[in-house]
Amino acid sequence: MKLILAIVSNDDSSSVSSALTKANFQVTRLATTGGFLRAGNTTMIVGTDDDKVDQAIEIIGNESKRRTEIVPSTASYDIGRYASFPVEVQVGGATIFVLDVEKFLKL
Amino acid sequence: MKLILAIVSNDDSSSVSSALTKANFQVTRLATTGGFLRAGNTTMIVGTDDDKVDQAIEIIGNESKRRTEIVPSTASYDIGRYASFPVEVQVGGATIFVLDVEKFLKL
Amino acid sequence: MKLILAIVSNDDSSSVSSALTKANFQVTRLATTGGFLRAGNTTMIVGTDDDKVDQAIEIIGNESKRRTEIVPSTASYDIGRYASFPVEVQVGGATIFVLDVEKFLKL
Ligand code: NI
Ligand code: NI
Ligand code: NI
Repeated sequence: MKLILAIVSNDDSSSVSSALTKANFQVTRLATTGGFLRAGNTTMIVGTDDDKVDQAIEIIGNESKRRTEIVPSTASYDIGRYASFPVEVQVGGATIFVLDVEKFLKL
Repeated sequence: MKLILAIVSNDDSSSVSSALTKANFQVTRLATTGGFLRAGNTTMIVGTDDDKVDQAIEIIGNESKRRTEIVPSTASYDIGRYASFPVEVQVGGATIFVLDVEKFLKL
Repeated sequence: MKLILAIVSNDDSSSVSSALTKANFQVTRLATTGGFLRAGNTTMIVGTDDDKVDQAIEIIGNESKRRTEIVPSTASYDIGRYASFPVEVQVGGATIFVLDVEKFLKL
């Protein structure tokens, strides 16, 4: 038994979580602030058999791909006047820890 | 030293937490959303000596027993008319991971 | 690779977090309620190489020193009359778990 601790951005947490659930993994989401990738992360706990760790990691990776998004940004360039222009931001990505579980119980 | 990660339903988290504290276990509660059992879970971190793991697990199990509760439910059976009827729901239960701790410090 | 789980009081969580980040550690903060030290804790997850565990622990300890603070307190000593007097409270401190990481990935 292994415990996977996965930290993904909030944007990806729903799709990661539902893809894992669809593949019969059990997922617990913790509210996370700040952190590994950027502010706005979710930490997930996934308990899994040793031989399914790689499958879980693959699903997490697929649903949290690093990508560039164009978001609108606003800057003031003069007193009282503003310009809106697009900015590229990096989103997605995942940080994954796999830990060994000595004992696992469902009561 | 072991670290117990216990996921219980929010309904049981107070009684699990106070029963553990009364038995001199140190408990940290994390806010949890969704997950192993159902929406509305609490994840607890319990640090304990190796020889007290079973006692902690027994306490968690006692305070988070799976049980059936009858809750009122409402369904519309016609436009503008509603029926209220009781529904059985499963509540309680716990998911427990025991991890080995390499180093434990209280500063 | 090791995973450090550090529980510090909310008062210290910002300075612990920024001191770790300044030293190039990657920190994820979890919202925590109740727990090891007192109500109002923050749990942090720090992933680090084995040979930097002691440095991380030293930083956490430096930024979360146990100390006594004088806070105002109010007590009613008669119906409708109140006295304000200073009370010593213990703040700070940290509880630290070091766990071994079998696999670590950044996707
Ligand atoms: Ni195992
Ligand atoms: Ni041990
Ligand atoms: Ni290692």
